[in-house]
Amino acid sequence: MEDIIFGKNSVMEALISGDREINKILISKNIHGDSKLNKIKELARENGIVFQFVAKEKFIPYAQYNHQGIIAQISPVQYKDLDEFLKETKGENLSVVILDGIEDSHNLGAIIRTCVCAGVEGIIIPSRRNVQVNAVVEKTSAGAINHIPIIKVNSLVNAVQKLKNSDWWVVAADAGAEDNYYDINYKDMNFALIMGAEHAGVSKSLLKLSDFKVKIPMLRNFNSLNVSNALSAIIFETVRQKLQK
Amino acid sequence: MEDIIFGKNSVMEALISGDREINKILISKNIHGDSKLNKIKELARENGIVFQFVAKEKFIPYAQYNHQGIIAQISPVQYKDLDEFLKETKGENLSVVILDGIEDSHNLGAIIRTCVCAGVEGIIIPSRRNVQVNAVVEKTSAGAINHIPIIKVNSLVNAVQKLKNSDWWVVAADAGAEDNYYDINYKDMNFALIMGAEHAGVSKSLLKLSDFKVKIPMLRNFNSLNVSNALSAIIFETVRQKLQK
Repeated sequence: MEDIIFGKNSVMEALISGDREINKILISKNIHGDSKLNKIKELARENGIVFQFVAKEKFIPYAQYNHQGIIAQISPVQYKDLDEFLKETKGENLSVVILDGIEDSHNLGAIIRTCVCAGVEGIIIPSRRNVQVNAVVEKTSAGAINHIPIIKVNSLVNAVQKLKNSDWWVVAADAGAEDNYYDINYKDMNFALIMGAEHAGVSKSLLKLSDFKVKIPMLRNFNSLNVSNALSAIIFETVRQKLQK
Repeated sequence: MEDIIFGKNSVMEALISGDREINKILISKNIHGDSKLNKIKELARENGIVFQFVAKEKFIPYAQYNHQGIIAQISPVQYKDLDEFLKETKGENLSVVILDGIEDSHNLGAIIRTCVCAGVEGIIIPSRRNVQVNAVVEKTSAGAINHIPIIKVNSLVNAVQKLKNSDWWVVAADAGAEDNYYDINYKDMNFALIMGAEHAGVSKSLLKLSDFKVKIPMLRNFNSLNVSNALSAIIFETVRQKLQK
């Protein structure tokens, strides 16, 4: 089974990370060369990966994907096992993000990008009632998917328990919380941040397990931040706390 | 000329704001009633706006829009004039966001939502080389478009000059900046935050006019935050500074 990934960033980042087996890269004869394309060809040559220039008609089946005239056939993303992740991930001031019921592929892609930029160690998703990694997620993540483990679990409750048993603290984003997200000191702990579904929020069973519940203050009577934007506000606050003198 | 808006949030927020003339609301006979739908019917009745229950086939032409079985015919968004905006907008600690070449409708919609939640006073877009408000923007904004003026200008350079002449400070997001975004004190000024195109960043002519250039520190060797997520990190830092004791 192979996946197809689309666009210059996706293909380039897959080449850079080297974690996934790339079978073949197809490039439209009609696209203009640029520095990204040159880099892709260079990396492909270095790694002995075939690339072919093909007629633009080859891309018609992928018209919905904003492919920019370049696709690659690649082995699927390997989900990581939580136990394995916890065994390998040792250190201080680490973070993971837990997604509880995110349904939109664009949101998952944007969240993956944001997590990589913010140095998050891994993203935990449940195997049901959450979007899985698909072609739109890969494309929206702009290749970031190749730089962070996605950990799939059968039960988020069990996963949170395991994290707590391994001395991770658990922070849940909850519109009804008393504390604002910036009232918490994220500096001296490993923490997991739980973000909930766009409408329903974080499940009650997970809220109950959380050590902290935090909200983002809303300055207008309009309480509906997109989940990837909410995550960005919170996670970069944790980065600020870690970096600011 | 009328626009069509899609989805429960879009229709509800248009009704709440009352700024735009709604000609008619069409509701699919097949959708389940819920509190949002009840609220929509109640607001429509109060304001003498017609709503009709129609067969789901009526929605086939709008299949691409994730309409949730409800659409409204509505007057188009009225763009605001910058001079008018500046005359009306007086106060301290105000902010506006300037978008320089944002091409993606989903990004513009998400940015509008984030700006409304963060209490931004207005969004300035150029009349060329930037996505304009369209059906996807309206939908992605989840109705937020009805709670913030969109100011369209022919020249961003002139607009920035006008803001500076009116004692607004200008902050540009720039990956090459020395200062991190949280190193600036946003508390005692009115400021305009310029966000650039996904790839090209903020134009040189605008960077030159900016009082501050700020970057978001990246914790991995992957520098490609989605523009709406970058905006969210920065704008909620300004909110934190204003609110935190």
